Amino acid sequence: MASADTPWVGVIMGGKSDLEYLRPAIDILTELGIPHEVRVVSAHRTPDWMMEYASTAEARGLSVIIAAAGGAAHLPGMVASKTLLPVLGVPMPTTLLAGLDALMSIVQMPKGVPVGTQAIGKPGAANAALHAASILALKYPELRARLAAWRQARTDEVLRDRVLS
Amino acid sequence: MASADTPWVGVIMGGKSDLEYLRPAIDILTELGIPHEVRVVSAHRTPDWMMEYASTAEARGLSVIIAAAGGAAHLPGMVASKTLLPVLGVPMPTTLLAGLDALMSIVQMPKGVPVGTQAIGKPGAANAALHAASILALKYPELRARLAAWRQARTDEVLRDRVLS
Amino acid sequence: MASADTPWVGVIMGGKSDLEYLRPAIDILTELGIPHEVRVVSAHRTPDWMMEYASTAEARGLSVIIAAAGGAAHLPGMVASKTLLPVLGVPMPTTLLAGLDALMSIVQMPKGVPVGTQAIGKPGAANAALHAASILALKYPELRARLAAWRQARTDEVLRDRVLS
Amino acid sequence: MASADTPWVGVIMGGKSDLEYLRPAIDILTELGIPHEVRVVSAHRTPDWMMEYASTAEARGLSVIIAAAGGAAHLPGMVASKTLLPVLGVPMPTTLLAGLDALMSIVQMPKGVPVGTQAIGKPGAANAALHAASILALKYPELRARLAAWRQARTDEVLRDRVLS
Amino acid sequence: MASADTPWVGVIMGGKSDLEYLRPAIDILTELGIPHEVRVVSAHRTPDWMMEYASTAEARGLSVIIAAAGGAAHLPGMVASKTLLPVLGVPMPTTLLAGLDALMSIVQMPKGVPVGTQAIGKPGAANAALHAASILALKYPELRARLAAWRQARTDEVLRDRVLS
Amino acid sequence: MASADTPWVGVIMGGKSDLEYLRPAIDILTELGIPHEVRVVSAHRTPDWMMEYASTAEARGLSVIIAAAGGAAHLPGMVASKTLLPVLGVPMPTTLLAGLDALMSIVQMPKGVPVGTQAIGKPGAANAALHAASILALKYPELRARLAAWRQARTDEVLRDRVLS
Amino acid sequence: MASADTPWVGVIMGGKSDLEYLRPAIDILTELGIPHEVRVVSAHRTPDWMMEYASTAEARGLSVIIAAAGGAAHLPGMVASKTLLPVLGVPMPTTLLAGLDALMSIVQMPKGVPVGTQAIGKPGAANAALHAASILALKYPELRARLAAWRQARTDEVLRDRVLS
Amino acid sequence: MASADTPWVGVIMGGKSDLEYLRPAIDILTELGIPHEVRVVSAHRTPDWMMEYASTAEARGLSVIIAAAGGAAHLPGMVASKTLLPVLGVPMPTTLLAGLDALMSIVQMPKGVPVGTQAIGKPGAANAALHAASILALKYPELRARLAAWRQARTDEVLRDRVLS
Repeated sequence: MASADTPWVGVIMGGKSDLEYLRPAIDILTELGIPHEVRVVSAHRTPDWMMEYASTAEARGLSVIIAAAGGAAHLPGMVASKTLLPVLGVPMPTTLLAGLDALMSIVQMPKGVPVGTQAIGKPGAANAALHAASILALKYPELRARLAAWRQARTDEVLRDRVLS
Repeated sequence: MASADTPWVGVIMGGKSDLEYLRPAIDILTELGIPHEVRVVSAHRTPDWMMEYASTAEARGLSVIIAAAGGAAHLPGMVASKTLLPVLGVPMPTTLLAGLDALMSIVQMPKGVPVGTQAIGKPGAANAALHAASILALKYPELRARLAAWRQARTDEVLRDRVLS
Repeated sequence: MASADTPWVGVIMGGKSDLEYLRPAIDILTELGIPHEVRVVSAHRTPDWMMEYASTAEARGLSVIIAAAGGAAHLPGMVASKTLLPVLGVPMPTTLLAGLDALMSIVQMPKGVPVGTQAIGKPGAANAALHAASILALKYPELRARLAAWRQARTDEVLRDRVLS
Repeated sequence: MASADTPWVGVIMGGKSDLEYLRPAIDILTELGIPHEVRVVSAHRTPDWMMEYASTAEARGLSVIIAAAGGAAHLPGMVASKTLLPVLGVPMPTTLLAGLDALMSIVQMPKGVPVGTQAIGKPGAANAALHAASILALKYPELRARLAAWRQARTDEVLRDRVLS
Repeated sequence: MASADTPWVGVIMGGKSDLEYLRPAIDILTELGIPHEVRVVSAHRTPDWMMEYASTAEARGLSVIIAAAGGAAHLPGMVASKTLLPVLGVPMPTTLLAGLDALMSIVQMPKGVPVGTQAIGKPGAANAALHAASILALKYPELRARLAAWRQARTDEVLRDRVLS
Repeated sequence: MASADTPWVGVIMGGKSDLEYLRPAIDILTELGIPHEVRVVSAHRTPDWMMEYASTAEARGLSVIIAAAGGAAHLPGMVASKTLLPVLGVPMPTTLLAGLDALMSIVQMPKGVPVGTQAIGKPGAANAALHAASILALKYPELRARLAAWRQARTDEVLRDRVLS
Repeated sequence: MASADTPWVGVIMGGKSDLEYLRPAIDILTELGIPHEVRVVSAHRTPDWMMEYASTAEARGLSVIIAAAGGAAHLPGMVASKTLLPVLGVPMPTTLLAGLDALMSIVQMPKGVPVGTQAIGKPGAANAALHAASILALKYPELRARLAAWRQARTDEVLRDRVLS
Repeated sequence: MASADTPWVGVIMGGKSDLEYLRPAIDILTELGIPHEVRVVSAHRTPDWMMEYASTAEARGLSVIIAAAGGAAHLPGMVASKTLLPVLGVPMPTTLLAGLDALMSIVQMPKGVPVGTQAIGKPGAANAALHAASILALKYPELRARLAAWRQARTDEVLRDRVLS
């Protein structure tokens, strides 16, 4: 049902090769029924389109932006510089440094422009979606319920199989 | 005016020695008029009080939790495991590894329990407050206006003195 | 014979995917005849069960806890916060940072709550079992003898084939 | 004589606190008689001014841009995305990670938008100026001569005092 | 009362300059009434004395060895190779790499010879003493009580001053 | 058309195994019609040939040198010490440290001899060619046009496929 | 001819799995006609045999010891503590940290006991043999000639194929 | 007495600011009566003088070269490329990365040209002198005796004060 509505969350990435690592974010947003859009927005190859995307996001109805990038990962921070919306950053492990470079480039933002950074790669992508959900749940009680159920299901999953020997 | 009201943001830290680095968060919350409380909550020395703090936060009216810790920094992630509220983590540079250990311990959360990690030390503390503001601004238009003004003031500050020679 | 008795050692891990790396610990405990139990206990997905596991461990007769986790590895430190038993931590290489993040998250514990940290991955798992054995050997002379024999066998193995050319 | 003319080199930095580390660049440009301008251009606090600065640089007569930034250092890469001029990046050691974060954020640019990265801090600033000089020397033979003399002077300096005991 | 009795814990260090960082270990052992001895034992300068110390430790009545060293920190691992007693290692920050080298040298032990590694520097020294106490508490109920009280005192300390604003 | 003319750019590498990673540089130089030569020049195995190559480069008509090396990567810096031409360095990921050693060895040049360092591996190789093009474009307007077209093509590529869902 | 004579060089390693990485050392010693022996000597599993090996090496006629180890690599440093012979250390990439741990454990020796550390893995193994040869060449002119020829052959190899395009 | 004779050891450094860290090397060479010379030889500022120094070293009677450098430390490796003498490298902590960059630049030499790398800074400088002594002791029995005495004195020093409490 999600992406038919006006999107609440914008999921953007520096290049199409990041999509593989971002898939868990998209899957969780869909599973939680959070309307979203998915776009390639390259800070370096399409800076104008990035500035436009970021500066119009709020007016278009978005509430949260999830931005993923690898290497010298400038996308999350630059988008954050052009919007007041909360921006969540996901470091992509797409260079030879396994995402450590992207982590540094995303998390070490100077005072004034925050990015809520998640873990490197797929776990971070999943958590960006869950963090977006926890933000949106402040406004939407039924989303809060779905998030609570998602979290409980994972707890139950562990508890069910907790005895190995 | 802030901390007289029911707090919207809980600012917690692993030990009182973190307060020095967290000060910019408290100052910005105050400046933006965001009601908040400040507590020492040690994951390791007071695990029960931590569990209680986290699990009652939402019911007590908090909307966002800012958690700071150094070294093997478990506070943000553990609090996040006990609440559906968005949790923002700030790595403290209180060991000999200058906060790199705390950054790893906070940001590399497994799939399922997100922490929106900020930069190490004071810039991260300031940004945690601003990120909390951007989340709360989704609900409170007048806070959005104050946040926009805060951001604009910093832009103006740079522009005013941009020519050095 | 081991796991039929009341267990002396609890072997716990953050997720079932850690089992592969923990196998050497279980094998050595079995080989040395140390009764043990193996459980999945997730700090983040099952915090209440973790608190319960840790706080009842001593009363249930456990003497040592071996806790393994990857990424922002909070399990060993949190368990240590809820028990007076010696806790041994094993960093799991389950993220893109090859266990360096888990090592930092486990070893850099603040003053007050110790975790005896072992090497990353399988060698660390094996050594956690041996360290548990050396602790239990203080009480059980026959276990000391078995441990001494295990160590001697490895010495003999090296000495037998030491001349390569 | 330098900065009276139309500047050939733009020296920009993310914040005024970077000036201390950039001073060697400015001194060498002045010493070599290379007209230059010095500006604060913050990628995060003044993104529009940064985009304007970068996109008009070539038309205003600049030939090379030296950009310095610390932490999640986005300035050099973002400027490079908006100009065809060669951009030289200097990582600033202004966070608790001593410039390692800035180095990663500047040097690990994706295919398509290069930044010629120099060493962290003052040596890198000096070398950015010398690199700019070597680029400009391709066009200006008298600058090439001044650069050759500068380099020779340093060689002579070492040779003069090379015998310590 | 502690060090008059036959020592239960041997506290050894690679050089006298480590004593400053080890002081918290000695203080806590004394506070908990655990008899101990303190020795300089250099793996590199006094290898024979190290071998003798380690191989006679158990017969002399020691139950646990705490070994601290910096740089290429071989003391904990080598002592562990010559005794079946549990050995706890404390990385000392005595080189220009702030203890990261010592951490690697102590924690990354190969399968067969475990060292229970603690945090770098003073917090690790304190925790080594507490870990030794938790091991000895398995045998000595009154020590367990003193350890429980020590831990409770720290919990109380946090709780008493937890409200900052 | 490129490599038939007197070369403008010298592409050199420490060993033939680097060629795989340098290929994107050669491809882009060819695509942009920049005459170039490709040579193996080992700083360690052929120091005299390296000194000769570097010191005669300018006289032979080269304008820019791209130098790639792995491990203790001395080639870019040593070539830079023997020429006034701009030297661009590309760290090769040919050791077990994935190019981090080469990055340090290339970028951390002391004051006096600059190397414009690019990213590790293939993206850095491509960007070295583009950086060389941006330097040469200062002199050759038609090359500037080709570079602008190359950059625009990549922008268009992103924009065309930017909507994923 | 080499290993039939009284060995001049002892090549030792912490475990048989290191042999694969040490092979280049053995091949070069053989190629240069340097008599040598190859042994497994584990610092942790066979500390007594290690002490004996090191303390009798000089009397048995060895002139240089090449010691390789991975992880918490104590072998080179401990051997160096028991002999006045020059000891060359080779870090083995046998843990999940790719040899960085072994490098730290070998190179960061405290004042008083030196280890001449080589690169991680195979290149370091080859270089340990060459370094041993350069030491022995001080005494044996014909070995110096063979070493010179070996080096020249590699120079010629590069020069022969230096033109790629 | 040492430096009046034809020097056996050449101690060289990239800049005079390294002298402070190299002092322990010079002191130990003097103490052991090893004739030596001390020179500033900059790989980057005086490449020709470096090539000359290295290529004439053997003919001038030197037996060992100790080379110290910081940052992108090319001096040890380049000298090693121009001589068959054993070269010992000492990483200098003269940049903001505390010598880690110099360590990488010195130790990660490719197959063919070895550098016997010592620890970062003063301990490494002292050990370079001791390593040189151990090499020269193969030829000069009376130096071997002095080296043995030096080592014994340090052992005695530890043993004398080994009991702290």
